[in-house]
Amino acid sequence: MGPIRPAYPPIERKMPAFDPRALQRLLDGDQAEIRDRVKQLITQPEFRYYDGTDIEGYRDQVLKWVRQIADAGIGRIGLPRSLGGEENPAKFIAAAETLAFHDFSLVIKLGVQYGLFGGSIQLLGTEYQHKKYLADCASAKLMGCFAMTEIGHGSNVQALETAATYEKATDTFVINSPTYSAGKTFIGNAGRDGRIATVFAQLEVNRQHHGVHAFLVPIRDENGKTLSGIRIEDNDVKLGLNGVDNGQIWFDHVRIPRSEMLNRFANVTDRGNYVSDILSPSTRFFTMIGTLVGGRISVAAGSNNVCKSALTIAIRYAARRRQFGGAPLAALSHPLETLLLDYPTHQRRLLPPLATVFAVDFALKHLIQQLGSRASTRSFETKAAAIKAFATWNANRTIQTCRECCGGEGYIAANRLAALKADTDICTTFEGDNTVLMQLVAKNLLTGLKEKIKGMKSGQVTRFFFEHKINAVFKQNPLFRRTRSDEFLLDSEFHLTMMRFREWTVLIACAEEFRELATSKDVYTAFTTMQRELLELAYAYVERVVLEKFVEAISMIDELPLKKTLTRVCRLFALWQLETNRAWYLENGVLSGAKSRAITRLVDQLCREVREEAVALVDSFGIPDSCLAAPIALE
Amino acid sequence: MGPIRPAYPPIERKMPAFDPRALQRLLDGDQAEIRDRVKQLITQPEFRYYDGTDIEGYRDQVLKWVRQIADAGIGRIGLPRSLGGEENPAKFIAAAETLAFHDFSLVIKLGVQYGLFGGSIQLLGTEYQHKKYLADCASAKLMGCFAMTEIGHGSNVQALETAATYEKATDTFVINSPTYSAGKTFIGNAGRDGRIATVFAQLEVNRQHHGVHAFLVPIRDENGKTLSGIRIEDNDVKLGLNGVDNGQIWFDHVRIPRSEMLNRFANVTDRGNYVSDILSPSTRFFTMIGTLVGGRISVAAGSNNVCKSALTIAIRYAARRRQFGGAPLAALSHPLETLLLDYPTHQRRLLPPLATVFAVDFALKHLIQQLGSRASTRSFETKAAAIKAFATWNANRTIQTCRECCGGEGYIAANRLAALKADTDICTTFEGDNTVLMQLVAKNLLTGLKEKIKGMKSGQVTRFFFEHKINAVFKQNPLFRRTRSDEFLLDSEFHLTMMRFREWTVLIACAEEFRELATSKDVYTAFTTMQRELLELAYAYVERVVLEKFVEAISMIDELPLKKTLTRVCRLFALWQLETNRAWYLENGVLSGAKSRAITRLVDQLCREVREEAVALVDSFGIPDSCLAAPIALE
Repeated sequence: MGPIRPAYPPIERKMPAFDPRALQRLLDGDQAEIRDRVKQLITQPEFRYYDGTDIEGYRDQVLKWVRQIADAGIGRIGLPRSLGGEENPAKFIAAAETLAFHDFSLVIKLGVQYGLFGGSIQLLGTEYQHKKYLADCASAKLMGCFAMTEIGHGSNVQALETAATYEKATDTFVINSPTYSAGKTFIGNAGRDGRIATVFAQLEVNRQHHGVHAFLVPIRDENGKTLSGIRIEDNDVKLGLNGVDNGQIWFDHVRIPRSEMLNRFANVTDRGNYVSDILSPSTRFFTMIGTLVGGRISVAAGSNNVCKSALTIAIRYAARRRQFGGAPLAALSHPLETLLLDYPTHQRRLLPPLATVFAVDFALKHLIQQLGSRASTRSFETKAAAIKAFATWNANRTIQTCRECCGGEGYIAANRLAALKADTDICTTFEGDNTVLMQLVAKNLLTGLKEKIKGMKSGQVTRFFFEHKINAVFKQNPLFRRTRSDEFLLDSEFHLTMMRFREWTVLIACAEEFRELATSKDVYTAFTTMQRELLELAYAYVERVVLEKFVEAISMIDELPLKKTLTRVCRLFALWQLETNRAWYLENGVLSGAKSRAITRLVDQLCREVREEAVALVDSFGIPDSCLAAPIALE
Repeated sequence: MGPIRPAYPPIERKMPAFDPRALQRLLDGDQAEIRDRVKQLITQPEFRYYDGTDIEGYRDQVLKWVRQIADAGIGRIGLPRSLGGEENPAKFIAAAETLAFHDFSLVIKLGVQYGLFGGSIQLLGTEYQHKKYLADCASAKLMGCFAMTEIGHGSNVQALETAATYEKATDTFVINSPTYSAGKTFIGNAGRDGRIATVFAQLEVNRQHHGVHAFLVPIRDENGKTLSGIRIEDNDVKLGLNGVDNGQIWFDHVRIPRSEMLNRFANVTDRGNYVSDILSPSTRFFTMIGTLVGGRISVAAGSNNVCKSALTIAIRYAARRRQFGGAPLAALSHPLETLLLDYPTHQRRLLPPLATVFAVDFALKHLIQQLGSRASTRSFETKAAAIKAFATWNANRTIQTCRECCGGEGYIAANRLAALKADTDICTTFEGDNTVLMQLVAKNLLTGLKEKIKGMKSGQVTRFFFEHKINAVFKQNPLFRRTRSDEFLLDSEFHLTMMRFREWTVLIACAEEFRELATSKDVYTAFTTMQRELLELAYAYVERVVLEKFVEAISMIDELPLKKTLTRVCRLFALWQLETNRAWYLENGVLSGAKSRAITRLVDQLCREVREEAVALVDSFGIPDSCLAAPIALE
């Protein structure tokens, strides 16, 4: 009988033309120090992969990890300098990203504690609340919740039902859930560990409604006992992320002091009056919500890193697993069976998504850099929302593909793809449902266009549209439509021109459709009617943005072999996107049939080329073997 | 505080133009009796949804259910009449399909016990083994395994390593696993309950190799103790199907009597000689494997029914869940928020997959009917393989979409989408990996073409290809390419012509590419090189077949309202397929840009129309509420 311990064939390791460590340095960027620090932590034995199915045990484990992370000072990174922090969200996101190599429940629980709970106090609160809570939040002594979503109100936050009514006699707010559907739900830390919650509620002062504001409401005492007037139900078993204790909360006329309103953007004065220096209620609402964009970026970054783990497992397995085309055993004198990675279908399934993960990585780096400079403009929010949707959809699809590419082995929990898939699945839905986010992106783009033509007179507008159509038609000239030399098709200028053309054409078409619809319908109905077109616009936009950031990042590389490899990866990403959308280009006469087929052939060819360095490319992600954990991916 | 028990708004129930019970009768077909009987069983309290996470508890529960199913006489359905059975595979598949509304682990465990273990004895064995084992198999007294897949050999069954060496002196076979990778893996019932296994092994008689044959090998005694020479490891926790005890088995020179070879197609005689009336080893192998096509059909049928559950949950939820566009509460005098089902993006996500589930259902009915007449021709196997891949990929994608369409609620285990998704995920991989199956389909189609032109002389072949190309060019005539009246585009003749044209064109292109490649490469390499094209051929083929069966089924309906509704569903399916593949049609000049966009607009329009009857359509699946179990889908 053969040995009983897994004995997989060695992973094929070809010598790449580039230095994987150089690529890793590029990916680590200016946050290499914190990434290394986190890796040192998560490669300790107590951070080994939790493979149990016992939910309580898992929650205990994750809470323990949270405390260890806090003890290592990582919770302090985001704190204001005045409180001994580093006020460095980029560094905190890098830490969270790196933790995503280990366990996504941990990332989410930390995200709730620091990004959402701590972040809401920091960004929506003022000094009083900062001093009172942030140190205990950072040390994980005080576990908190972020209670926004309600059972009846997920995406439509402005319609929340929970009420916060100011009572002058007692100088308190009365927090109340008037109905079942007003219950807060899917609230992380609410199931078990949270003692306080940032609660979003409709503020009423002197019988006047002021819309959604945030309040700090204690929910459990120090012994974990639920406080009077609070009702909590556990969300129980979930598809994934079972290390996070999500729960539902209802409030029965719970009183909190006036000081517990997060009052940076609006306040109730000593005399009991509502004041805010943001006059428009809608602007106020979006200002408050907008401060939370960091969470969206973290989710995208985290799920992109989980996707890296999945690709590392699937590509390493594909570089050792053989099937068909020869004799199974090396011992025989026949040629070996074919490596999965040598099958064109396998390359097609794994390598364009691999290229996409690199593209997303650079787009996220760009976002995080801008986050550091606190750019919370509409254009930044648009970009963040679009990249979040793009990254998380790609992660979901890719991890699923990785599972399938590993066959039965991918189905075994020990090989970790099950957990990677289940834990990130919700990323397409939370921190903004992707479909809703993409609608928002498109509307913002239309608003941007509207502002551009705002000053114009009616005749000018007509000419503006006309000229841009001319411009579009120009792009359809036979040369552009037909030239299909490899050199032309591989040029990033070609890729970007195509994508910009599509984005612009769809934008103009949407604007015209909206103008037409708006003559007979209200704005909401008009936008609803053209949802499919808006989705297309958002896709066209984000694909262009992501490619631009990838091309920009490559342009700054000095090392030639690395530049060459990444250029190939970037071309695969770009041409795969063009191939995916080729129906649109064909419909609009920008591609001839022959040219479209030439693109498909180039994607095949680039897959073959990238395949040669695929193992080295995933090595450059720098994921510790102990985190990968999957036996099929380890020597 | 509001009530704590879920209180979802009522599900919008519009009066459909058709009678859902009539549609259910059509779907139930001639197996209504067994479906009703199974439903009666699974709506009993002891069959309530198992929502625990304890693996041993789940396995216990599923085994209990298996015994109850056996006690209800369902295991006997497939048995030969001579043993008191009904010899009715179609009826057995209908029972399994219906059980898929309840729990997919149960379906798979039954599939292992009856379809694979029992089926292998019945179809590969002879009377001796039938009499010895089938009654105990049917009663579930003797739980068995189907030990084909090995650690090193999944899809490539011909390369199995397990050896069965005939020893004349003792008149026994010696079953042996020479290496670690020879271990049988993912074997259902091996982890815990199985006492005997159908083992596929390389037969050696008198030092001559005869390829893969099947043998019955006891693995545990009556008390569940593993027998001497047998080593079993549990496959442990999996992504899903944790109610099934999968395991790995190694054999250390285990002896079994000669009578335990499944000897219908080949035998070792009393004098110790190997005999078979199928002379070609390859034909023998495929004859043996081909008998198992029923399993493939069952998997497709089961996962299509799980997909029905997911769609029922997501569509009912979409018909009660409101978000944006009005006031959240009916109590207010404002209009209500918009139902999710009224959003075009939501319709686009759910309704074409709903149409596909109907299409697959009719295609499967056709297959099952042919299975009854035991058509095990190559053309039947091709169709079964293609539909299995098509159905299971659709199920995977659709259940994922359903999860996302239910937002956070979809992530909660109690709403069951998590289990539906996890349990069927493996269907794309087992009973033939879909990608491998699709390659097989394409190769079979090419073989079919080859046979068609076999008798022709070289000149004739050239003319054959030339004429069919002319035919293809003819289809590109401007009228066909440009006519885009609704009437023309909605006609099933148009859909079928388009699909047949694509299939035929891709087939010819593949044949030409193969001819070209085969001049310089061996067959295996040639096929590997053109994998992408083969995949496209297989897709073109299966889409056409599925549509044809849908159109045929509708043509036989007498009831006009039902015919009208299903025609609309069928058009949605067909046009969605054309839209999905429009890039190909545009590349090949069969669609103009304007016509392609007209198809997209028609898909939008059909979505709006089908939306009106969507709830009634899922009601017609006839899934008992107690099986659906998801609170978000129940009144």
